[in-house]
Amino acid sequence: MTDPFFSPKGVAIIGASHDPHKLGYGALRNLIRYRYRGGIYPVNKRSYEILEKTCYPSVSDVPDPVDLAIIIVPAPAVAETLRECGERGIQHVVIVTGGFSETGPEGKIMEEELLAIAKEYGIRIVGPNCIGTIDTHTPVNTTFVVGMPEPGEIGFISHSGAMVAAIIDWASGSGIGFSRIVSLGNQIDVNETEMMRTIALDPNTKVITGYIEGVANGQRFLKEARKTALEKPFLMLKGGKGESGAKAVASHTGALAGSKEAFQTAFRHSGIQEAETIEEMFEWARAMAWQPLPKGDRVAVLTNAGGPAILAVDALEKQGLKIASLSVETKAFLSKRLPEASSVNNPVDVLAGSGPATYTLALEALLSDDNVDAVVVIQAPQDWFLPVSLAEVVGEVAGSHHKTVITSIMGKASVEEALKILQKRKIPNVAFPERSASVLAAMINRRKWLEEAKDGSPERIKADQNKAGEAVHDANWAELLKVYGIPFPDQREAASKVEAIEIFKSMSGPVAMKLLSDDISHKSDIGGVILNVKTAEEAGEAWDRIKKAAQSSNGKLKGVLIQEMISEAPEVITGFVRDPQFGPMVLFGSGGTDVELYKDVDMAIAPLTKVQAHKLMRRTKVYQKLQGWRNFKKCDIEAVAQVLVALGQIASDHPQIGELEINPLVVLPEGKGTKAVDVRGSLQAEN
Amino acid sequence: MTDPFFSPKGVAIIGASHDPHKLGYGALRNLIRYRYRGGIYPVNKRSYEILEKTCYPSVSDVPDPVDLAIIIVPAPAVAETLRECGERGIQHVVIVTGGFSETGPEGKIMEEELLAIAKEYGIRIVGPNCIGTIDTHTPVNTTFVVGMPEPGEIGFISHSGAMVAAIIDWASGSGIGFSRIVSLGNQIDVNETEMMRTIALDPNTKVITGYIEGVANGQRFLKEARKTALEKPFLMLKGGKGESGAKAVASHTGALAGSKEAFQTAFRHSGIQEAETIEEMFEWARAMAWQPLPKGDRVAVLTNAGGPAILAVDALEKQGLKIASLSVETKAFLSKRLPEASSVNNPVDVLAGSGPATYTLALEALLSDDNVDAVVVIQAPQDWFLPVSLAEVVGEVAGSHHKTVITSIMGKASVEEALKILQKRKIPNVAFPERSASVLAAMINRRKWLEEAKDGSPERIKADQNKAGEAVHDANWAELLKVYGIPFPDQREAASKVEAIEIFKSMSGPVAMKLLSDDISHKSDIGGVILNVKTAEEAGEAWDRIKKAAQSSNGKLKGVLIQEMISEAPEVITGFVRDPQFGPMVLFGSGGTDVELYKDVDMAIAPLTKVQAHKLMRRTKVYQKLQGWRNFKKCDIEAVAQVLVALGQIASDHPQIGELEINPLVVLPEGKGTKAVDVRGSLQAEN
Repeated sequence: MTDPFFSPKGVAIIGASHDPHKLGYGALRNLIRYRYRGGIYPVNKRSYEILEKTCYPSVSDVPDPVDLAIIIVPAPAVAETLRECGERGIQHVVIVTGGFSETGPEGKIMEEELLAIAKEYGIRIVGPNCIGTIDTHTPVNTTFVVGMPEPGEIGFISHSGAMVAAIIDWASGSGIGFSRIVSLGNQIDVNETEMMRTIALDPNTKVITGYIEGVANGQRFLKEARKTALEKPFLMLKGGKGESGAKAVASHTGALAGSKEAFQTAFRHSGIQEAETIEEMFEWARAMAWQPLPKGDRVAVLTNAGGPAILAVDALEKQGLKIASLSVETKAFLSKRLPEASSVNNPVDVLAGSGPATYTLALEALLSDDNVDAVVVIQAPQDWFLPVSLAEVVGEVAGSHHKTVITSIMGKASVEEALKILQKRKIPNVAFPERSASVLAAMINRRKWLEEAKDGSPERIKADQNKAGEAVHDANWAELLKVYGIPFPDQREAASKVEAIEIFKSMSGPVAMKLLSDDISHKSDIGGVILNVKTAEEAGEAWDRIKKAAQSSNGKLKGVLIQEMISEAPEVITGFVRDPQFGPMVLFGSGGTDVELYKDVDMAIAPLTKVQAHKLMRRTKVYQKLQGWRNFKKCDIEAVAQVLVALGQIASDHPQIGELEINPLVVLPEGKGTKAVDVRGSLQAEN
Repeated sequence: MTDPFFSPKGVAIIGASHDPHKLGYGALRNLIRYRYRGGIYPVNKRSYEILEKTCYPSVSDVPDPVDLAIIIVPAPAVAETLRECGERGIQHVVIVTGGFSETGPEGKIMEEELLAIAKEYGIRIVGPNCIGTIDTHTPVNTTFVVGMPEPGEIGFISHSGAMVAAIIDWASGSGIGFSRIVSLGNQIDVNETEMMRTIALDPNTKVITGYIEGVANGQRFLKEARKTALEKPFLMLKGGKGESGAKAVASHTGALAGSKEAFQTAFRHSGIQEAETIEEMFEWARAMAWQPLPKGDRVAVLTNAGGPAILAVDALEKQGLKIASLSVETKAFLSKRLPEASSVNNPVDVLAGSGPATYTLALEALLSDDNVDAVVVIQAPQDWFLPVSLAEVVGEVAGSHHKTVITSIMGKASVEEALKILQKRKIPNVAFPERSASVLAAMINRRKWLEEAKDGSPERIKADQNKAGEAVHDANWAELLKVYGIPFPDQREAASKVEAIEIFKSMSGPVAMKLLSDDISHKSDIGGVILNVKTAEEAGEAWDRIKKAAQSSNGKLKGVLIQEMISEAPEVITGFVRDPQFGPMVLFGSGGTDVELYKDVDMAIAPLTKVQAHKLMRRTKVYQKLQGWRNFKKCDIEAVAQVLVALGQIASDHPQIGELEINPLVVLPEGKGTKAVDVRGSLQAEN
């Protein structure tokens, strides 16, 4: 239970100060100013009273009830202070003081001491080197930062204290309300994963947002984040995306799976939606807190001016949303009620002269139309009526439907009052209409994720674990894949003409015969490759021709490779890597030698279900090709999904394998399966 | 000369009104309220005085000097009013009245009448169906929209009146000043191209911005826009990007060259920088108006907090900018002056306790470092000093250097005063640090464009125009390309073994021999293709083998194609299309059958210079491949440039050709040239 960080019964401020320039002053001031209703107990040996509150010489002197302490004493004194808290029975502590592991190894040693004391007394710590916690509903503000956000539905956790300070300052002017805010600091105890669960369980929090720079434990994060996102919208800004320095790259797969991609994969798996900017994150959060998710992607635009509607439509289409086709009834109704020159197609343009009544009728009609999932209401500045009236009617009409409504009442100076009304009515407003698109897209993505999140558990593929273990031990990847049912082209080497004919007879169907020689590189150029050999007689002839070709090129014939004939078909790359944070990830994408040029690949957390395998494939461009492309028929996509599932299972079953890559995996027409033409892998050092 | 639209000697408001709900009231009010200093002459038969200004029964009664009329009478009366203006000698007219071509064919006829009258009297018209013009320096505001932007350096032209109204309202609160604003309406006379020139010539305008939905004349726009962008930064938001409906697609090239891509190509050619959103456009504009362009792409970040700096660095790297490596001297200086735990690497973190003096020293050091082209100064909210002091010192230090400085003083409520100081000091501030990246990238892109804009004129390739004309007439594209020096693989057909040997002897080097047959499709599979035939004897043998292969497949041998042997090499697509607006455009990109899957193609306006050809190639991913990729050596990129130049010239020389496409163009190693393996084209209907 970490709830005393947000609804304490009493708070001791150890290191409270008279001096307005000290943090110990700010924290005390904030508890008082932002109306914390429990006991507020400044602790300072040298004072009797600070800010009209009785001051205590030591935390042991603080009266009951008190279950939270804020420690703001110099770093060397923190350990002793923490012990005093333990003795006093305070089990929740925010350590604001900095100067620990962020300054070097000595600070790290001090942190370990703190952690030992905390374990001894059962104390939970937020920090050190943090700003503290805020709950606007309790209310309590344990930070020293001036300002208190308005109460709202958004929770925010942050690895950066400065970001918390900036958000508090910014929020007060932006009409975005918060439920809980936490600065995690060096998180020696409570980390982002535990805190996100605490906030998810807060009934006042409808949306969880965060700024994180990393995760304490990748596997645990994955599990808890997914649980959280299934309950509430979960939005994240990830700091530190650049690749730090060069890294050894052993394969395509390794080169394509950077830390940025790993985080994206982990976030996608968990249902965390990653925003690009701070504003975007909170714009998404506000809309998800205030409006229902759209049931589909069909958007209607209602406007009093053409240009702004065009920008909105461009942006919506760029985000992949659909411009709704209005029903015949809606169009008929609008034709009757709107001014003559109005457009009754989507975007619906009521023209400059129309007022809130016209908007009301049009919005009512659009929200009643079964072809419409969401409406963007645009108002370009005009002199005909007060924007507040529009805000009122939009709020009222939207309130009687269960569809998503976003407004863009444009302008600044003239619309402030209107924006306040929209805020009260829980209608998110964007300053410019094109910004509605990213908000709606985020909402629709959440709905889709929720719908598809019931993936079930990965089904197990039956594989002989003895054989598999042996193959792994021998690093015989081809054999390992066979154990897991991933088909290879049938092939064998012949050392003589007689053997070649024997081998041909033992194989089914036509074969390709290829010169084996150490001296000759471009075998097909000299006639060393003969395709589509269909009879034993042809096989013998082919042997002779290959032998002759080798002779005329002065090369030494080592033998002939006889390979099951694979007709030309799309090639993909697949495999798995192990991310140091999040564990094994299955990779899929366009194969061949250009894979690193186009980077048409994506990843998913292993092991995966068939459904997840299909979703992974759909995120690549090559998927289009597998569905039938130019002279290629529709491919055996189901068989590819099976390979992905098998690879995910291999990754789970055999932690000794560091990486495995099939490139190319040839994908045959529907019902014909796949062929792993080439496979590479590497073992990793035992842990 | 269209300057009386912005600095008239006297203005007649025809249709001026007492009624505050009428546009004729608003326009008069704005001239008075926003302090136009010339004569203001309301014209209205039924009034003696409006808003304390003498009213005239007709425009003919208005006293001198008057050189601009605003017409706000009902549509049917506009023509007569315009004629009266002509008789009165007024040659500049803003027609605010709507109800013309935007309502249908009848309105279109009325517009033609207006244009005829305008020609008769030499009148220049802005509108009809527009909002009017603003010059904040004159000052004059001919619009009826409440509000007047602060004087500034940004000019704005718009095809949407609503957008103008929204910008006026928004600008008053945003600290972004404007020089001139024009709403173009139906632009029956003055169009966006002419207006952008007028604004470019305005000495108060440092940056030109625009919202356009199309161009009146593509070729003229291209020429004038390029001239404009060479003089001043030119930023544009394009409305209406979605493709309207399906269109017939005859080739890859056609499918890849949509109207959106055509506009992007035209904008790029002209040096117009296209923004994604309204805010982005004005954020770019403000920075370009206020700050010098960075000389390079090396950015230093100065901050008092880690998190916000990380977001800035992520965003800068995403935009392709470099995080500057500071000089040894700078680091030594910073180590001495900054608090102990500060980071003296970039980002430079002065830590939370530092004040404006520390920022001063650090910023001075960074701006003095030759390794730094631009500095982003971040201030996360703090309680140590007033943000205004930081604004002052940043303004002062930046003012004594000639490098780009952008601030991100974060927060809202607490920093308003600081933002006003930055505005005065012409330091652009972004609300969140990550937004600095797009601004700096836009500035650097402008510098690059200016540097590379001195492309010179396309050099002419010598080509026999008689032969070329004949080839075009016959639609013999292979022949046409040869005339322009684009090499084909040498190839001829043999009908007999003797002929095959003859042909072999006439060709230089090894050949490929391919079965010609109407019955057999997979020729290589049945042994119908023999590569790398090196001697006449081998050619004879190959004939026999191909004949046998045809027989054993029960196919009819029509002959054998003998083709110069082309070793495996990267393949590209190239060609040209004709955009209905902007004329011929040369296309280049990844070739082969996957071209439409990856869409790794780009375009350039034809004809083009070698420099432009190289720039076009550099915009594609396949360019990387041409520079040497895996088993391929560095390719003959210069030869590809030559092909692009030739295609551009063909497009110019032969307007009868609608499209031409080479796919694939095989690009051989350096010094070996290219081979156009396949070419297709189409003639277009004569104009």
